[in-house]
Formats: sequence, C-alpha cells, structure tokens
Amino acid sequence: MQKRNIIVNRLEKEHIEDTRVEIVERKGVGHPDSISDGVADAVSRALCREYIERFGTVMHHNTDETQLVAGQSRPKFGGGVVLEPIYMLLVGRATNHVGNESIPVAEIALNAAREYIRDTILNLDPDTQMTIECKYGEGSADLQSVFKNKTAIPGANDTSFGIGFAPFSEVEKLTLEAERWINSRDTKRRIPALGEDVKVMGLREDNRITLTVASSQVDKYVSGVEDYIENKEKVKENLEKIAPKITERPVDVVVNTGDIEKKGEEGLFLTVTGTSAENGDDGSVGRGNRVSGLITPGRPMSMEAASGKNPINHVGKIYNILAFRMADRIAREIGGVKEVEVQLLSQIGRPIDDPRVAYIKLMTDSDFALAQREAESIVEEMLANIKEVTDDVIHGRVRTF
Amino acid sequence: MQKRNIIVNRLEKEHIEDTRVEIVERKGVGHPDSISDGVADAVSRALCREYIERFGTVMHHNTDETQLVAGQSRPKFGGGVVLEPIYMLLVGRATNHVGNESIPVAEIALNAAREYIRDTILNLDPDTQMTIECKYGEGSADLQSVFKNKTAIPGANDTSFGIGFAPFSEVEKLTLEAERWINSRDTKRRIPALGEDVKVMGLREDNRITLTVASSQVDKYVSGVEDYIENKEKVKENLEKIAPKITERPVDVVVNTGDIEKKGEEGLFLTVTGTSAENGDDGSVGRGNRVSGLITPGRPMSMEAASGKNPINHVGKIYNILAFRMADRIAREIGGVKEVEVQLLSQIGRPIDDPRVAYIKLMTDSDFALAQREAESIVEEMLANIKEVTDDVIHGRVRTF
Amino acid sequence: MQKRNIIVNRLEKEHIEDTRVEIVERKGVGHPDSISDGVADAVSRALCREYIERFGTVMHHNTDETQLVAGQSRPKFGGGVVLEPIYMLLVGRATNHVGNESIPVAEIALNAAREYIRDTILNLDPDTQMTIECKYGEGSADLQSVFKNKTAIPGANDTSFGIGFAPFSEVEKLTLEAERWINSRDTKRRIPALGEDVKVMGLREDNRITLTVASSQVDKYVSGVEDYIENKEKVKENLEKIAPKITERPVDVVVNTGDIEKKGEEGLFLTVTGTSAENGDDGSVGRGNRVSGLITPGRPMSMEAASGKNPINHVGKIYNILAFRMADRIAREIGGVKEVEVQLLSQIGRPIDDPRVAYIKLMTDSDFALAQREAESIVEEMLANIKEVTDDVIHGRVRTF
Amino acid sequence: MQKRNIIVNRLEKEHIEDTRVEIVERKGVGHPDSISDGVADAVSRALCREYIERFGTVMHHNTDETQLVAGQSRPKFGGGVVLEPIYMLLVGRATNHVGNESIPVAEIALNAAREYIRDTILNLDPDTQMTIECKYGEGSADLQSVFKNKTAIPGANDTSFGIGFAPFSEVEKLTLEAERWINSRDTKRRIPALGEDVKVMGLREDNRITLTVASSQVDKYVSGVEDYIENKEKVKENLEKIAPKITERPVDVVVNTGDIEKKGEEGLFLTVTGTSAENGDDGSVGRGNRVSGLITPGRPMSMEAASGKNPINHVGKIYNILAFRMADRIAREIGGVKEVEVQLLSQIGRPIDDPRVAYIKLMTDSDFALAQREAESIVEEMLANIKEVTDDVIHGRVRTF
Repeated sequence: MQKRNIIVNRLEKEHIEDTRVEIVERKGVGHPDSISDGVADAVSRALCREYIERFGTVMHHNTDETQLVAGQSRPKFGGGVVLEPIYMLLVGRATNHVGNESIPVAEIALNAAREYIRDTILNLDPDTQMTIECKYGEGSADLQSVFKNKTAIPGANDTSFGIGFAPFSEVEKLTLEAERWINSRDTKRRIPALGEDVKVMGLREDNRITLTVASSQVDKYVSGVEDYIENKEKVKENLEKIAPKITERPVDVVVNTGDIEKKGEEGLFLTVTGTSAENGDDGSVGRGNRVSGLITPGRPMSMEAASGKNPINHVGKIYNILAFRMADRIAREIGGVKEVEVQLLSQIGRPIDDPRVAYIKLMTDSDFALAQREAESIVEEMLANIKEVTDDVIHGRVRTF
Repeated sequence: MQKRNIIVNRLEKEHIEDTRVEIVERKGVGHPDSISDGVADAVSRALCREYIERFGTVMHHNTDETQLVAGQSRPKFGGGVVLEPIYMLLVGRATNHVGNESIPVAEIALNAAREYIRDTILNLDPDTQMTIECKYGEGSADLQSVFKNKTAIPGANDTSFGIGFAPFSEVEKLTLEAERWINSRDTKRRIPALGEDVKVMGLREDNRITLTVASSQVDKYVSGVEDYIENKEKVKENLEKIAPKITERPVDVVVNTGDIEKKGEEGLFLTVTGTSAENGDDGSVGRGNRVSGLITPGRPMSMEAASGKNPINHVGKIYNILAFRMADRIAREIGGVKEVEVQLLSQIGRPIDDPRVAYIKLMTDSDFALAQREAESIVEEMLANIKEVTDDVIHGRVRTF
Repeated sequence: MQKRNIIVNRLEKEHIEDTRVEIVERKGVGHPDSISDGVADAVSRALCREYIERFGTVMHHNTDETQLVAGQSRPKFGGGVVLEPIYMLLVGRATNHVGNESIPVAEIALNAAREYIRDTILNLDPDTQMTIECKYGEGSADLQSVFKNKTAIPGANDTSFGIGFAPFSEVEKLTLEAERWINSRDTKRRIPALGEDVKVMGLREDNRITLTVASSQVDKYVSGVEDYIENKEKVKENLEKIAPKITERPVDVVVNTGDIEKKGEEGLFLTVTGTSAENGDDGSVGRGNRVSGLITPGRPMSMEAASGKNPINHVGKIYNILAFRMADRIAREIGGVKEVEVQLLSQIGRPIDDPRVAYIKLMTDSDFALAQREAESIVEEMLANIKEVTDDVIHGRVRTF
Repeated sequence: MQKRNIIVNRLEKEHIEDTRVEIVERKGVGHPDSISDGVADAVSRALCREYIERFGTVMHHNTDETQLVAGQSRPKFGGGVVLEPIYMLLVGRATNHVGNESIPVAEIALNAAREYIRDTILNLDPDTQMTIECKYGEGSADLQSVFKNKTAIPGANDTSFGIGFAPFSEVEKLTLEAERWINSRDTKRRIPALGEDVKVMGLREDNRITLTVASSQVDKYVSGVEDYIENKEKVKENLEKIAPKITERPVDVVVNTGDIEKKGEEGLFLTVTGTSAENGDDGSVGRGNRVSGLITPGRPMSMEAASGKNPINHVGKIYNILAFRMADRIAREIGGVKEVEVQLLSQIGRPIDDPRVAYIKLMTDSDFALAQREAESIVEEMLANIKEVTDDVIHGRVRTF
C-alpha cells in the first residue's frame, strides 16, 4: 500500500470554551428518534452475531431506517392506558440466503427489536403496546464471496465522510451526563417514575450555563400533581449536584418548563410507558444524536445515520466512529492539544483502511510540528487497526447515538 | 310480548343418508382461514371479559375481519426457517371509551391473538414469526346506555338469518372426528410431527366413503422422507380405526395425495410451523367452516362469519349458534325425528328473543303433529333463554368455526 | 379418456316455491364485501389479459383475498368529507417472472383496482379516498411449462367442489333485480343520489314477499332530510313497479328501516362516496354473494370465493360457474324440469374436464329417464367445452359475486 | 416588548476558502431522502393553503416524517419494469376538526404527495409504482383559538435552534449548481435519459476541486451501454463548462465511478423511474440536505428536519430558514463581511419574533464595530418581519432541502 493520505493542520478558530454562545442537545434513549436509532443498531448487531456464528463473517446488511409512528395513550395518575399501539416499521436490507442456507432475518430482527425495547424502555411492552413490522429487502451471497470477505480489507461502500472532535466542552459533558444520570439503572430504582424519554438542551451564554431538561414521568408511579412536582424537584436537585463536578461555571437547571400544572394529567409530561412515542411523537433513525451522543451545531457534524448501518464497509458508520476515537486519543495523548477535529473521506471501492484523505485539525499551545507528527502516527495506527471498530460495534461497545 | 312467530313444517326432501353423493369439508384449526376465525373470536371473547369486569356488561364491538397474509419459509428435514413473517391484520371496531374510562382495546386484542396462536399452533411463534397489526375503528359509549344494556333484551343489529340442522350425518361426523383426532393434544404428544394445518374432505358415493386428508408435518420433528411417510401411515391407520365407530360403511382414507416424494422437502406438505400460512397460503375470517365446524354444501348454510362478532346483539352470530342448538335438541329429544332444519330470521332493532320468524322443518317417522308441538315448545324456551348463548360464547363454550 | 363419471338422480325435496319460508340476500356492488370481490376479480382478469398478450397463455395466479378496512367520514347534506381513507389490502400470489421476462404484477393490479373502483363506485376517488396496498407473493415459471400449458387440459388445483341450481325462484329473481335496478346506469342518471352500497333481503312467508332494502345515498346530491326521504320513496315506488313483472304474489318493499330521520345526517344511510366502507364497514372477498349473485340458505351453496381465483385450473372458481351454467341449461332446455341441482367434485391433479363426479339432481314432472339422458348429454358436452368458462371469465362475461 | 437579545461577535476561525480540505454534498431531488423531504413539505404547503382558505389562518400540523421503503425493479435498456411498488408512509399530525367543520387531511395529503411526485420525478407513476399510506394523528381546534391565531405572534413550539451561514463557498456553489443543471427542465428536455436521482459530492483539497457525481439514467431512453456512456460524457462536459463561471480553481468532474460497464444493465446506475428508491434505496425526511440545500460538515449545522414542519410556530423550520436569510443579507449588504454565521435559539412558548438569543458571528476585513451595528439592525428588522418566512414557505418560495 502507498502511504496513506493524512493531512494534519492547525485548527484555526476560537476555542469552543471561549465562544460567547454554545448550544448542545441530547435526546435521551426514550426519545422517539433515539428508540429508532437504538432498535436499528440492535438489529444490526444481532444480525452480525448470527452471520458470524453461521459463516464466520458478517454478511451484507443495512438496517438503518426505522420509522416510528406515535400511538395514542391516556395517561392517568396511578396508571393509564395505551389506546393505540406505537407502530414501528423496520426498513433496510439484509442477506437472507448464503449458498443453500437461509437466514431468518425477520425473526432475528423482531427478536432483537423486542429485546432492545424491553431492556431500554422499562414500562413499554413491545408485544401489546407496539406493532413492529419488517420491510427488509432481501439479498443473497455465494459462498466464495464469503471466504473472500473473511480476509480482505473491505472496500468503502460509498463516497462519504466521517467527522469527529475532542475533547468535549463543559456544556457537552454536562448535557451528556444529565441524561445519563436520569436514565441510569440506579436512578430508575430510586425514582421509578422517571421515564426514559428525556431531552436535555445545554446552553452556555458567556459563563452562565442553563440545562433545560424535558423529563417524562410514568403515570403508574405518580400518585398526583404533588408527587409529579416532587419528582421534578429531585431531578433538578440531583443535576445541580452533578454540575460542579464538571464545571465551575454557574449552572441553572430547569425541568419541564412547558408544564401547566393546574391542568392536571393533560398539562404535564406524564406518560403510560415513559416515552412520548405513545402519544403524538413520531421518530426515525438518524434525526437525533450523532455518534458523539449529542447534537452540536457549533461543531462539525456528519449527517450520516450511523445506527443500523453495517460495521464492515459502511463508511457512514465506521468513519464517524473512528473519527471520534482518533480525536479523543489525539486530545488525550498529545500534550498541549486544546481541540482537535478529524475528517475522514472515503472513496467508493477503496479499502476502508486507506481513506482518500484523513484531515486532522489541531489547536495546540505546544509545539505544533511535534503534535503534527504524533497525530499522524496515531491516525496511521488507528487506520491500520480499523477492524477494531467493526469488532467493537458488533459487541455493543460503541455508542452510535 | 306477543306470541313468537314460530312455524314448524315438514322437511320434505330425501334423507341426507339416502342421497347418492354427499360432500363435506373441514378446515383444521391450523388452516389459514381457521387461524383467522380463531383469532377473531379469541379477541372478541377477551374484549367481552374485559368489558364485563369493568362495566358489568359487554360493550359494542365486532372483530370479525382478520386478513392473514402468508409469509415465506424454507422447511428442511430436521428444522428449517421462516424467512418472512406471517402478517395478520386485525380489523373491526370496538368501544374504547365508556364515559371517562378508556379501554386499551388493541392491547387486549394483541394479547388475545398471541395467546390464541401460542395455544393453538404449537410450533408457530407469534412474536418473531408473525407481524400482528390492529386496525380497529374506535367507538364510545355513555354510562347511561351501559346501564340500559345490562337489563334489556338487545335489539337485533341487522336483518339477517341463522341456520342450523341436525343430526350430523355419518360423513359429517367422520370428517369432524378425523380433524379432531389429528389435532388432539394426545395425538400431538404421540406424533409431534403432525401440524395443525389439516383439511379433511369427506365424500360419500352411495355407500362408499372416502376421507381425503391433507395433513401438514412440522419439519423439526421429521428426519427425512421415510419418517414423513411413516407419519402419514400413522394418520391413515388411526383414522381407519376410528371410522368403524361412526359408520358401518366402508371408508377409504387417503393422506396428502398431492405429495411427490421423490422431490424431497419441496414435494411434501412439510412446514416449519405446522401451517401453510408460513408460505403461500393466505386466510381470512368467514371463508372456512360454518358454526357446525363444517362446510356442507348439501345442507342449508349461512354465509355469516360468526367468529369475532359480538355475542350480544349480532344475530349473524347468535342465531346461527342458536339454530344449531335448537336443531340438535329437537333431534335428540323428540322421538322419531330423522332430520331437522332451523332458520331464524331477525329484523333490525327487534328484540333478539323475538325473531321475525323461527322456521323449523322436521323429517319424522312418528306423529308429526306431536313432534310439531314439542318442537315449538323447545324453540319457545330456547328463545326465552337466548342469553345463554351469549354467556356460552363469552366463556368459550361454543364452536364458531 | 374413460367415460366421465356423471350421475343424474331425482331431486327429492319440496319445490322451492312451495316452501313456507324462503330467504334470499344480495349485497350490491358497493357493499364492502362486494367491492372486495369486484376488485379481486378485476385484478385477476387484468393479469390474465397481460399474460395472454405476453405469453399466449395465462400464468399461475390467485388474487382471491382482499381486505378492505373502513375509513372515516363525515357525511353532510350538500357534501361532506372522507377523513380517513379506506384501506384496501390486495393479497394473493402471481407469476412475475417467466423465463427472463419480468411482469409488473403490482402495477397491473393497482391499475386494475383503481379502474374498477372508478367505474363501479362513481363517487369514490381511489387516489385520494383510498389507500391500496399489494402484498402479493411472487412466482416464476419457465418457458417450457408455458408451452405445455397452452395445449393441455389443466389438472385441478385442489380437491374441491362446485355447486349450482336452477331456475331461480321468484324471490331470487326479485332480489337480484331490485339491486340491479338501483345500480343501473340509467337509475344513477335519474337519481344520482343513490349510492352503490345496497343490500336487499328477500323474504317470502307463504305467499307474501317482503323486500327489505338498505340503499345508501350520496350526500352531495341530497339537500336535506326531505330530499333524502323523497329518494327513498322513489326506490320503493320503482321496485313496487318491477315486482309484478316477476311475481303475482303481493310484494312489500321497505327501504332503510333503520333510519331515524329526526337525527338528521347521523340517523340516515347517508354517505360521501356511496359506500359504507367509508365509515365503519369492513369487507373482504368471499363473504358475500355466491356466483349466483345471491346468498341462498335454502339452496345448496359452496363456500368458495370465486372472485380473484385464476380461471385456468382453480376448480373453486370454474366448477361453481360451470355448475350454474349446467343447471341453467338443463332447466331451460329439458322439458318438464322444475328444479335442478348440480354438484361437481374435483380431484387434485385430475384434468378439470373430467371431474371425480358430476352429480345432477332433477325435479321433473315429465319422463325422468328421458330427462336423465338429456341432462347427462348436456353435462358431457359442457365438460368437454370447459375452456369456454375460462374464456368467458377472462373477458368479463361471467358474474362471480 | 423588551429589546431583543441580539449578540454580534467576531467569527474567529480560518476563512472557509483558506481551509485545506472542504467537503460538501448535495442529494438531488430524486434521491430517496429528498423525495421524502419534498413530499413532506408539499403536504404541509397544501394543508396551509387549505386551512387559510377555510379559516383564514394555518391550523396546527406537522407532516415532517415520511418513510420511503424501496421497491424492486428490473431496469432494461429500452424500458424495464417496477416489480414491487415503492412504499411511502406519511407520518405526522394535523388538525382535521375545527369547530364543527371537518378537513379531509388525508385526501389533501395524498393529492399533494402524488402531484409533487408527478411534477418532480418525471418517470415515476405515483398511482401504480408507489403505495402511499397516511398515518396521521388527528387534532382539533376550537374557533376561538382560530381567531386568536390570526393576530398574535405565535409562541415557539419548542426549545430549539436554527443555524445559517453565508456566503456560500465556491465548492458549495459548484455542488448546488451541478445538481441544479442536471435536474433543470432544460437539461431534461435535451437529455431525457437523465434521472432525478443525483448525488454530488464536492471535495476541495487545497486548490483542486473534485466533483463526484452519481447520476441515474432512465432505461427507456437508453438504448445500450454506449448510449449510457455518452450520456455520462454529456454530464461531465456540461459540468466542466459550468465550473469556470464559479471558480478559477481547477475542477475535475467524475460521473458514476461505481459503474462496471461490462456487466451491462446490472453494472450501471440505470433505473426504470429515475430514482434508486425503485430498487433498494430507502429514504426518510431530514436525513439529507439542510435548508442550505447542502450537507456541509465544515459549517455549523442544525439536525432539524425543516421539511414538513408547520411554518407558523415550529422554530425548527422557521429559525433555520431565517438564520440563512439573515446570514445572506448580512453578507451581501454589509461591506467587508467575508463570512457570517447566525444562530437563533428559541424558548418554548416565547414569541417567535423574540428568540432567547440571536447570536451572530462576523468575519470582516472592515470596521467590526460598524458591521456589528449594521448586522444588529438587520437582525432586528428581520425578526420583526418574521411572518414573511411563514408566507414564503406557504407559497413555495423557500427551499427546505
């Protein structure tokens, strides 16, 4: 192989922490868009594992489209009902014939989708409160190509790019952490009323940070308005306690600002299942968080929906994940790097370990030339080991949304 | 109430056992049409029970349309796969609001459908090998009408009729019994390979009876062609043993005449799940057995699909069931009755215990006038107790297909 | 070929006109079940024509399942709206690959369905007031089998039977004629308010006939309750004028007995499109009229849904049509025949011109032996020319519902 | 009203034209994601017009989710077939009851969707090559709120943000222009073979620009491989002619690099309808171009799907459009501005003409303080006239993708 085309440049812009306004958003795991992302990727992982078990390698598939159509519900203090199930349409394509062997793709997908829902949205029953339908295109592969797949570095499926940056700003960290706290198993045990549908908007205006949190509650664990308000208070208090661990800036936390408490059930973010998908909020893959876990308009972003794409040759997935990993390692390992951005550009058919260009931008207060060399070497090494990304995706060790 | 309009007449025709040709058919519980019937009625029963528990009475609903769209499968000796799930569309309407209370109709329906499938088609997994979707129209009721419902005799929902006859002919009994044997729990334990998709065609030409049986087998319990053939033999032998208990006429049993054994898996009635709905055979409510459990072109028949209709005021269900019960009781209780046909005609809005006309035709070799009076009295009494039909339907004590 | 197995026997029963009660029903072309039947058969005919044009012969298909899910509408004097479209699911299977050639089955089906709707339900727009979805299984054929198909008599697709009778009773004729009049182009021109959704129930009690007619009206042609009532009167008057041409018995005509006029729009059979499928009434293939055009519980009936079945080897279609044609010809051509019933029983794989048994029952007041011979010869001849049925179906010269 | 919160700051970063690598992408109008965007917005516009006609104001709706599921096709030189229709699921919610009046939302939507497809994808027939299904949630409004809507400035529907920048870089202009040329009516007249499914990837490496174009062709206008290659050449030549009007940098144009010409039909970007949605490529709203018409990872971007959102109070739509308009005007009207970025942050419930913060960043080589004042005044004015955005959206004068 020729030398890889790696360009390392200075990142010339205002440091993210020095900007006057910074906006960051995270949609929690129970947000309809995130549910779509999560199911799409769970299905892909399940297919990967099945393919590997049967053929020793992953066969072609992309399950990166999922449309979630909101149901209808009647939340009620003490426990309401879902009147119309959430409809989830799984879209994509997958290899279901290899040589003479048939793979029950839909069975695997439906199973993975249901398991993911059960594990993630604790109060949503995928069997009776959802309808899950597969519309997967079929594909077939011959055994020869299977053997070829096992050894070679795959060619990029498309001309596309991946983007990453590091390190996370304080607002970014806070935004991520706020949702993580609400949706941690530990919090759910202590405050079972908190649903998984959470949206956190982090805003920094100069030095003042505001976390605007929309946090659903599950009706059967809420006895009335007072109980609901108390739960909101708990969220506020806990997040206010977490903030100082991340930033010295003053942080305001506001929870469910849209509530009109005097309206009772109807005026609150009260749900039967913990997600607004039960009543009025649709969702689909790729419209929410990036692989950073965040939406960051002040940072470079890719539009690719990573969730559900195959982790073998789909650069829209692999390069976005890898770009973040590269940025992270560069920021952590190279002294004096304040900010780094990574762009990886593929060319259709070209081996994925050899992008058309890997473009790294560094903001550093130390010797740039040195940092440049170190960054180049990190990027070289990580491209050479690009299959680690694939492995980590398959084993669920990577966040895609 | 005025006297009911009951007419009892002579049944003037050749006795069914004297006809030269008699044709009877039964679609087993795993036939796609029967699955549709069974699910439709299971849903209605579940709704009835829910309504009664909540409101003390059954609210309006009809879940009597179900479209089953075949999936795709690849059966294989030792165990194949379902490639594309069976799609089941539940159609109908049901009351989901009573006063301020909401009833999760779809949840109840999806649950009932899945349970029915699990109990009935032992090797079909409704969660991963089927997609079940509800398209129920909504309805609401106010509390006043609920109270009214509890006491009054309901008015007929439509101008319609029910038909029954008795007793069953030998061919009818044989046809029913053949399927019952194949699909009994006991047989399934002894020959687990036998699937629930069964079709029995009984034909009598003069005194010779032929039972043509199509009986699916479940691939994971079948090691190869020989095993398959052996299972067919067992069906044949057992049915031949049963026949003499029902008739003295000679009975030929033929099983899976369409098989082309040399073709292997593809030439046989081999399935992954026990029903041909997995690959190519669609089904819907009301296209199969009548409430007699049979299709009997030589007998009067109603076209009404009884399964899934509400058992409160839907005469298409109630009158068909009642007509058979009347016929049966008349045939059993009145001496000398060789054959009886019952027709019940409703008039929209008129109380269901007072049909526009109850028309009974008797073939008797004893005193007709006496039989006539007895029949009239039986019909009177059974109309007066018509709510028993409703109760029996709700508690699953009535066959609707 | 061996001599065909034709049995001609006496029909021993009370003559239909002598029975004390006779019930007959017809669902008009705009009834949801009939719409399903009509579309299913229109699609099959369109496929037949396409196959013949491309390959000189009809390829395998069955489009005999259609589920119609009611929409939601708000009829209003002067013109209301359809709020939720009628959903129509076309189910079945069809050959879409012959050798290397691909046939756009779904395109043909969607086109045929839309055309049929436009031609039949004048005020229903299939493009914006319906959603039509195809779920057809695929099939392929090789060119050799195509050539074979062209010449041979096909083998029966199943063990099944067809049933026919003749001549029609007075009530049967009246019932048919009543709907025919309402849905004739001429009537529609004169009374455009009359919708195609019509249900006629004919009841004869001894000599008194009652026609109970449910006849929809199209709101944009109805200015108010008075106008609506006037239209009902016109139906009544016209049908009362037609009756004496068919019977000398007294005939009562009642129209829309369920109307509660004081309730205005909601209390009437008022529609936006002319069919109750727009709001609350689902439908599917094979649940309505038999190939006689009627539901006749007092006559032998087949449960087979003829509409949409292929007219080449599907005996559930061909034998039912042929049985009625045979009965009709026997009744018309053989002197003294008062009533005739025909049963045709197929055996899977056996050439369709050679049924396992053709069983004819005659009620005649002339020489039975002579009639027997004549009937046998008619049946022989019509079996020999069975392909005429196929041709007539393809060219739309046969009623299937 | 208090003074609006407008912050104008320096944009401190490398000028876009000075970066070493720049990547830009545009999905053409026939790309599956763009089709979804286009239909979603066409439906919203149609609803807006209907609401205005009936009520003088726009009622609540969001039709911003559309899932497109690929069909199956067999392209062939001279004309192939679509075997399985493209399935399009329209998702969202809309007001269908205002006071006593009902609005046929689905009718309007289906009509708008079909018209849009017909106008945009010239060789795709939405009636027979697509299935379009609506799953819209319902909504109702009372007449009082209607009157209120007419006068007041609406409150923001959510806490969200809009992002814009200006002026476009050379690569951005080129990328936009390349697709515009291919999909212009004029080009279609001259080269009817060119389908609407186009993807342009613009890459600048230092001073060298590469336009990678994927451009579908419509099979019925292509006689064979040579013809196909000739059409590709025409695209290349024409785009090479356009480039010098936009940039002095050298521009390489490569078209359909994935083609394997020796494979014939299968190796090319050949389609029956002009879009890859016919075979294997799914799409959905909000996964493609931003309101800039581009995907620009080197620029700040919003993740909001603007298409289909209501233009009254949905800041995810209005603020993104307005931010671009502000940026554009600032760049054009203020002397010396080299680059500008605009961020508008809403707060749920707060009037949309008064964002929580309007944050403008300027790169200017003239007096910053002066530019700052001018920018502030432009932003003030444009916020005061925010309803112009709404008007322009309704009348189709705004690009949303």
